Formats: sequence, structure tokens, C-alpha cells
Amino acid sequence: MAKEPKQLEELFHDTLKDIYFAEKKILATLPKMAKAAQSEELKAAFEKHRGETEGQIERLEKVFAAIDKKPQGKTCAAIVGITDEGAEIMEEYKGSPALDAGLLAAAQAVEHYEISRYGTLIAWAEELGYDDAVSLLEETLEEEEATDEALTEIAKTAINQEAKAAA
Amino acid sequence: MAKEPKQLEELFHDTLKDIYFAEKKILATLPKMAKAAQSEELKAAFEKHRGETEGQIERLEKVFAAIDKKPQGKTCAAIVGITDEGAEIMEEYKGSPALDAGLLAAAQAVEHYEISRYGTLIAWAEELGYDDAVSLLEETLEEEEATDEALTEIAKTAINQEAKAAA
Repeated sequence: MAKEPKQLEELFHDTLKDIYFAEKKILATLPKMAKAAQSEELKAAFEKHRGETEGQIERLEKVFAAIDKKPQGKTCAAIVGITDEGAEIMEEYKGSPALDAGLLAAAQAVEHYEISRYGTLIAWAEELGYDDAVSLLEETLEEEEATDEALTEIAKTAINQEAKAAA
Repeated sequence: MAKEPKQLEELFHDTLKDIYFAEKKILATLPKMAKAAQSEELKAAFEKHRGETEGQIERLEKVFAAIDKKPQGKTCAAIVGITDEGAEIMEEYKGSPALDAGLLAAAQAVEHYEISRYGTLIAWAEELGYDDAVSLLEETLEEEEATDEALTEIAKTAINQEAKAAA
């Protein structure tokens, strides 16, 4: 068995571990971002998404159960890199009127990574006939897309103007 | 001056350096992905996007010129992480029917990162009145979105079925 090439089932399982690690990393990062954010609106958006992320982690645990696997994370270099960039923004733009704009951009990079991963997982789950997984993953994808749109709205209506007005 | 907090202009400039580094990293990675891809369709998609990436780098150089700056990259931890994951797929799924599905997913993670960054840069350029930059960045954003859609199409029509059929 050891020499057999890995199959789509394993790619699905590996990628599930990747996003499980990523969601947990995001859960740990969101309170720091909420604390750093200057605008109440952005703070509230990060706090709301922290709650959603808890639900998304539970949903991933149900997906693991649906394919008879234990929930397990696998270091996701992408999310580590994306969140490191966010940490850099918090450091470099501390006290700047542009801090919130930078935080918001970092959060949108996170959302886009997740949107890409969930889109891929759904396509593979469909191919593999994992119907329960498809529904669970679709629920999360919809939440991530809504979060991304909400962040765009906050950027357009508040944060970017503030960043510029104060400049 | 050294103690003044950074402004939105600097955040725009920093993020421009980030995506300039990212595009160059992508330009170096795409030939490896094209070489690794098993399907001719996916190979062709990666090769096409390599050509586009060259044009996108030139466009970024015009954006630097539009804000009177020299083109300069700044290590982008996010793209390093995302491309490292792609390299891991090439290694772990070598010879597997699921390799192309994994490569395609890695490429879509790259596209989503870029879509997020260009969206952010356009919003900031609009805020800052950098009209020339807005047009240049919008051209690239449209290309990235089209690439992402083309990859989704290839995934749906060919790659995922192949990955499963061979499993």
C-alpha cells in the first residue's frame, strides 16, 4: 500500500486537515485583530466572525466524521504566511490612521484563501459523492463570502475614507 | 518625520511592493507547475497565465512610476506560504491521478490571494486619487478573475473526473 500513489480521497482529506488548521489559526488571530482595530465597526465585524469561525470549526469536525476520520490539523503554510502579514501590519501601522485599512485588507486576504479552499473542497466532495460534506462545506462557504462582502462594505463606507481624511 | 505614523499612501506603496514580489514569485513558479501538470489543458492554462503574469509585472512597474517610485519588491510571506503548499502537492502527489486536481487547487489559492490584493489596491488608489493606477490595477484584476474562472472550468470539465476515474 505504501507505494500506491495518493488518490483524490486523500487529497480531500489532506486539504480538510489544512483548512482545519487554518480555521483554528484564524480563531486565535481574530481577537488580536479586534483588539487592534480602531473603529468600532471593524472591531464588531472581527468579533462576529470569531463566533462564526467557532461554528465553522464544528462543521469541519462533522465533515471529518462524515468521512470516518478523526478531526486533525496539518500545518497550513499559506495561512501562517497570510496571518504573519497581518501581524506585521499591526506592528508597523500601530497608531496610524491607516491601521484599520491594513487590518481590513489582511482579513480579506484570509477570507479569499478560505473561499478558494472551500470552493475546491466542495468540488472534490461532489466528485467523490460525499453529499453530507457538500452541504456542510457550502454553508461555510456562504458565510465566508458574506463576511468578505461585509468587509468590502465597511472598507468603502468608513475605513478607507478615515485613513485618508486623517492623512 | 521618523516618528510620524505611516499613512494610507505608505500602506498603498507597501502593498504594491508585496504584490510585486508575489507576481515575480508566481512567474518563477508557473513553469514548474506547467511541467508537473499531467493534462495538456492544465499545462496550457499555466503557460498562458505565465505570459499574462509578465504583463502584470510590467503593469505594476507602471503603477510604481505613476506614484513616482522605483519598482521594488518586499517579501510577501503569504505568497511564499501559498506556493510552498503547491510545491508540497507536487512532491506528495507525484505520479498520482489526483496531482492535477491538487495543482489546480494550488493555482486557485494563488489567484484568490491576488484577487484580494488587487481589490484592496484599487480601493485605496481610488481613495487616494491615483487614477492611472486604478485603470492599470483594474486591468490586472479582470485578468486574474478570468484566470480563476478558467481554472474552475477546467476543474469541473476534466481534472476532477480524471482524478476520481483513475482512483
